[in-house]
Amino acid sequence: MNVPKKIFIKEVGPRDGLQNEETALSTADKITWIDMLSQTGLSYIEITSFVHPKWIPALSDALDVAKGINRKPGVTYAALIPNRKGLERALEGGIDEASVFMSASETHNRKNINKSIGETLPVLQEVTGTAKQAGLTTRAYLSTVFGCPYEHHVPLEQIIRLCDALFDMGIDELSLGDTIGAANPVQVQKVLDVLLKRFPKESFALHFHDTRGMALANMITAMDMGITVFDASCGGLGGCPYAPGATGNAATDDLIYMCAQMGIETGVDLSKLLSAAKWIEDKTGRELPSRNLQAAKSKNCFS
Amino acid sequence: MNVPKKIFIKEVGPRDGLQNEETALSTADKITWIDMLSQTGLSYIEITSFVHPKWIPALSDALDVAKGINRKPGVTYAALIPNRKGLERALEGGIDEASVFMSASETHNRKNINKSIGETLPVLQEVTGTAKQAGLTTRAYLSTVFGCPYEHHVPLEQIIRLCDALFDMGIDELSLGDTIGAANPVQVQKVLDVLLKRFPKESFALHFHDTRGMALANMITAMDMGITVFDASCGGLGGCPYAPGATGNAATDDLIYMCAQMGIETGVDLSKLLSAAKWIEDKTGRELPSRNLQAAKSKNCFS
Repeated sequence: MNVPKKIFIKEVGPRDGLQNEETALSTADKITWIDMLSQTGLSYIEITSFVHPKWIPALSDALDVAKGINRKPGVTYAALIPNRKGLERALEGGIDEASVFMSASETHNRKNINKSIGETLPVLQEVTGTAKQAGLTTRAYLSTVFGCPYEHHVPLEQIIRLCDALFDMGIDELSLGDTIGAANPVQVQKVLDVLLKRFPKESFALHFHDTRGMALANMITAMDMGITVFDASCGGLGGCPYAPGATGNAATDDLIYMCAQMGIETGVDLSKLLSAAKWIEDKTGRELPSRNLQAAKSKNCFS
Repeated sequence: MNVPKKIFIKEVGPRDGLQNEETALSTADKITWIDMLSQTGLSYIEITSFVHPKWIPALSDALDVAKGINRKPGVTYAALIPNRKGLERALEGGIDEASVFMSASETHNRKNINKSIGETLPVLQEVTGTAKQAGLTTRAYLSTVFGCPYEHHVPLEQIIRLCDALFDMGIDELSLGDTIGAANPVQVQKVLDVLLKRFPKESFALHFHDTRGMALANMITAMDMGITVFDASCGGLGGCPYAPGATGNAATDDLIYMCAQMGIETGVDLSKLLSAAKWIEDKTGRELPSRNLQAAKSKNCFS
């Protein structure tokens, strides 16, 4: 097994987590939580989404959140940006990195963005181009890489074609998403085997969901192939939009614990991260799916 | 990644699961559940424990359960046997396989069995010897192989010494237990690397807990090294005795789903297994930790 010395965690809880939670959080609570996350040692936090409030009412306070947080030097504060108008608000909020998004499958892209893939690409090009001119770094999410809830299998040729298109735009990092949480280690190996022959491994992040419990298994497979950047959500916050009640994002807590045990540096303090997870669990009022959070709630567990 | 064509699942829910559940099940319910499990395609079910009822009151009806179930041809029905007296009751109950147990760490063995390791080995020898004479196959559980809640690290030399002692007794299979659910893939690789140089890989089963979410990651690591026998519990039934509220046994459901996706044969029907998981979840009255069970409860999830 090829184990990296260090991995980089992109904390997506405040955006990908909160946008899928039923309980609405106050702006002040979001700011408090993001500030807690900033103190854990995380070097990257996606704090909100500048999509139209009509689509994600839970994040309609994006600008207030962006303006309200305490920026910790060395931490990159990113946000999801759907279009030129969203970017303008993000720039006003002083965001460091602009994340654009699209799906690898036509049907999911239409249901999620209300555009065809062909119509989406020029919008992403405009946003990333303008963001770069404004001095921001850029990231793209490519969803449904490991399966689509409507089309099921997504051909690798289609994924390659969209990776080409996104890298041609000058994207700094591409996050490959297991949107439905059904990717398995063999599939991860097959997909990466093809992509890493064409693109440098440093240009990818992997975004797994733990819907079927395979997130960490998929991550060690990806690490074994040279991937060192992973998206995760504190506490495993955020449900699965395709299976209400099921687990969504991989828990940052579980990833950090595994890495610590395996001698992989993350730079994150597990105890502080678990405190942030417990804090947001209390706010949501539901038991979050992070295994380590539930274990840590018993004082005997880390004995 | 070395992926086996087929793995064998040892279902331990009715014993290891129920002994750690707070809600007491009626004997009739246990029998109904075991009969449901027999119909899923599982080839091995550990149905109860013949320890003294004083130690595990939840399984005090061991003999009634053993006598009450409908034996499906081709399925091995096993039970945990602590001593000669327990074996006599198990033989009366018509058990197919006798499972003995001990810990790799002295303190855990004393706390669990109330004997030193030195005092335990002759008892196990007597039970397995008598069981074999009676025509039963035998299995041994070695707990705390990947960590002890009292002594923390357990030296590999100690594990080798106990594997030697157990195989010398003529044990048919040795199940290596991650009792506190803290094993990680690198550690699994290190331990197996040493053990598989000394003992045939067919003689081991791996028994992981999902307390920190690493069960499936550990299993694919073990599969990669040639292990094909895994213990698991339907629905992930059974808590962690060292962290009340935390996850215990790896969920059979999650293992089967991952295998199905990876093209590994298990012989188990996922849909039937999930029905059995849902049934026992309703009986326990608490949400079980299996990720697939929670996902399956949404009808859209398997779309």
